[in-house]
Amino acid sequence: MSGPTPRVQAATSRGGDVRVTWDAGVTARFHACWLRDNCPCPDCRHATTGELVLDQLHVPVDVAVVEATVGPDGELDVRWDDGHRGRFCGGWLHAHRYDDPADRTTAPAPSWGAELGAPPRFTFADVVAGGQGLRSLLEAVAAVGLAVVAEGPTARGTVVELADAIGFVLPSNFGATYDVVTLPDARSNAYTALGLVTHTDLPHHAWPPGVQLLHCRENSVTGGESTFVDGRRVVEALRDRAPDALDVLTREPIPYRYVDEGADHRYAGPAIELDGAGDLRIIRYAPNVVAPLQVAFDRLLQVRRAYQALGRAVDDPAHVVRYRLQPGDIIVNDNHRVLHGRDAFDPTSGRRVLEGCYVDRSELDSKRRVLARGAA
Amino acid sequence: MSGPTPRVQAATSRGGDVRVTWDAGVTARFHACWLRDNCPCPDCRHATTGELVLDQLHVPVDVAVVEATVGPDGELDVRWDDGHRGRFCGGWLHAHRYDDPADRTTAPAPSWGAELGAPPRFTFADVVAGGQGLRSLLEAVAAVGLAVVAEGPTARGTVVELADAIGFVLPSNFGATYDVVTLPDARSNAYTALGLVTHTDLPHHAWPPGVQLLHCRENSVTGGESTFVDGRRVVEALRDRAPDALDVLTREPIPYRYVDEGADHRYAGPAIELDGAGDLRIIRYAPNVVAPLQVAFDRLLQVRRAYQALGRAVDDPAHVVRYRLQPGDIIVNDNHRVLHGRDAFDPTSGRRVLEGCYVDRSELDSKRRVLARGAA
Repeated sequence: MSGPTPRVQAATSRGGDVRVTWDAGVTARFHACWLRDNCPCPDCRHATTGELVLDQLHVPVDVAVVEATVGPDGELDVRWDDGHRGRFCGGWLHAHRYDDPADRTTAPAPSWGAELGAPPRFTFADVVAGGQGLRSLLEAVAAVGLAVVAEGPTARGTVVELADAIGFVLPSNFGATYDVVTLPDARSNAYTALGLVTHTDLPHHAWPPGVQLLHCRENSVTGGESTFVDGRRVVEALRDRAPDALDVLTREPIPYRYVDEGADHRYAGPAIELDGAGDLRIIRYAPNVVAPLQVAFDRLLQVRRAYQALGRAVDDPAHVVRYRLQPGDIIVNDNHRVLHGRDAFDPTSGRRVLEGCYVDRSELDSKRRVLARGAA
Repeated sequence: MSGPTPRVQAATSRGGDVRVTWDAGVTARFHACWLRDNCPCPDCRHATTGELVLDQLHVPVDVAVVEATVGPDGELDVRWDDGHRGRFCGGWLHAHRYDDPADRTTAPAPSWGAELGAPPRFTFADVVAGGQGLRSLLEAVAAVGLAVVAEGPTARGTVVELADAIGFVLPSNFGATYDVVTLPDARSNAYTALGLVTHTDLPHHAWPPGVQLLHCRENSVTGGESTFVDGRRVVEALRDRAPDALDVLTREPIPYRYVDEGADHRYAGPAIELDGAGDLRIIRYAPNVVAPLQVAFDRLLQVRRAYQALGRAVDDPAHVVRYRLQPGDIIVNDNHRVLHGRDAFDPTSGRRVLEGCYVDRSELDSKRRVLARGAA
């Protein structure tokens, strides 16, 4: 936050709500019940945990404010009709106002297409040093959903160093980390030289891992360029060109399945989930692991067409960023938003060795907020 | 699956779909496009990965069947108008039919209330032996969302043994495992002697961990009984008594936040998410970590009332199972469905030491399916 802490200048109680005006001239209303719920006194909130001790369940929704006055340091002093008193910091109230829609919402980061050119670039040394270098990476992942951490070592385990800087490795059925190399008895198309349709990882999990790290240790093959697509741009394209398909994709479950000797993962959920504001919450798209559709007979072709429309939007060259991984690069991508793939390559032309792992998206966001503490 | 593999007895192509009759007399239609998508031949599906090689994106939705006949072992032989031919095992087709709604849906497990009495009980030795003992536990977690693994050791790390038998430990901001003990500088109400409202864990994560394991190492205090509530029963109660509140709870985001020195976790999502069939997908309820509501001014009291209605349904004694943890018990609960809490206890009356960790729900389900392979 920049500038001085806003101070309350005037407060007018109308029983059910209080109208507060700050010194900067901003005005907002707060419900008496909202204020009671958020009373910061140690009887209502635990002194060390900061968590609620107040039993909100038994605060009546129609609790009223009897008196609202301005304290000596621009605080709001409130007395409710249950006899309780509380004092709110003016700056805290300002930061938590909800009266104006603009106070409550932050615009989602803009989407991107091929015009992005390449993933935003950071260097390994800067990022693993922590502090501002790490923060810049995490801000880019939050805003763009994609970044490359370049000029790193090519040793096995490097990807774990980066994961540990961000949070910790989130294990999956592929292990804590996994090698993306060509294997004769591949249990996933990833472990072949086949091209991989631009996709999201692990859609057969109820909640796929939120962040993927993919470290390039060697890349001397012909072909094998990486592709990236912003799911948010895909949603925008569908909303423009195929709104009915988008509607189907947000409602009808697409079943995914992954099977090997020790695993049998299945999940069926909408390919696209939007939040209440219509923004992308998660996209699940991986046509190579789609299981047989199980939808109503008379809706099946409609669902099939919608999924095909999604695939066409993902493959649209206007949406695709193509990037050749360099040894020492680590791609960081938001697996709930950004799809990734690769062109086919010639396995006899050289070696292509990647090591990958996942990180929880909430952990990345938490670290980003912690690093922002005290930063201007 | 029981009984012999169903064999196809008759097949009638009508171009856009094929009507199949099995020897048991069951009949179902399959779209020509669905059959083409699922052709099992090695040109369409990778021989070792089992994943699709066929590019479904370029299979026309209106592909037609030219010929459908019955093979020598009760298979379905199909020729499409793109010139491709495929052979489907009769049993596979039978298992994946979707023509009748009853073929596609499985009824959700019944909900429970106080009448459950106690969590279904298993013993540590049986469960960690794997095989049928482990499978029984995992089936109970899938059906009831709650179980106790009893008669185990009381040593630190025992909970990890169980996690490793099920899958692997899912780390969180509380570490790989965490001790639930009374601490003077508690960073969560869990680490006090306060009662804990029956709640779900980590609602401030975009996707809270799906399975909680909580191992009782010592319990000699007065009080501190554990409580469990089936979120599915809560949804049923709200649907009966407060359908408007349920509707609000599935739409309006409730913000949760957890802060300590190294973490700042925030998430705002509906307290109750239902799937397309109206069944509970996930419940997030933890009033002690609710952040200040940020909803439209004129809807705020409605949201507050709905959340209070949810709290009342959770606290309804008809819904609560109360259980006193014994040293050596490990509670296993579905954190997306079953809420847990504890009564306050007297920290001077003895010791209460729990060790907890999380496991991914998709990993548990995967292990359950793997253990069911080949079982009658």
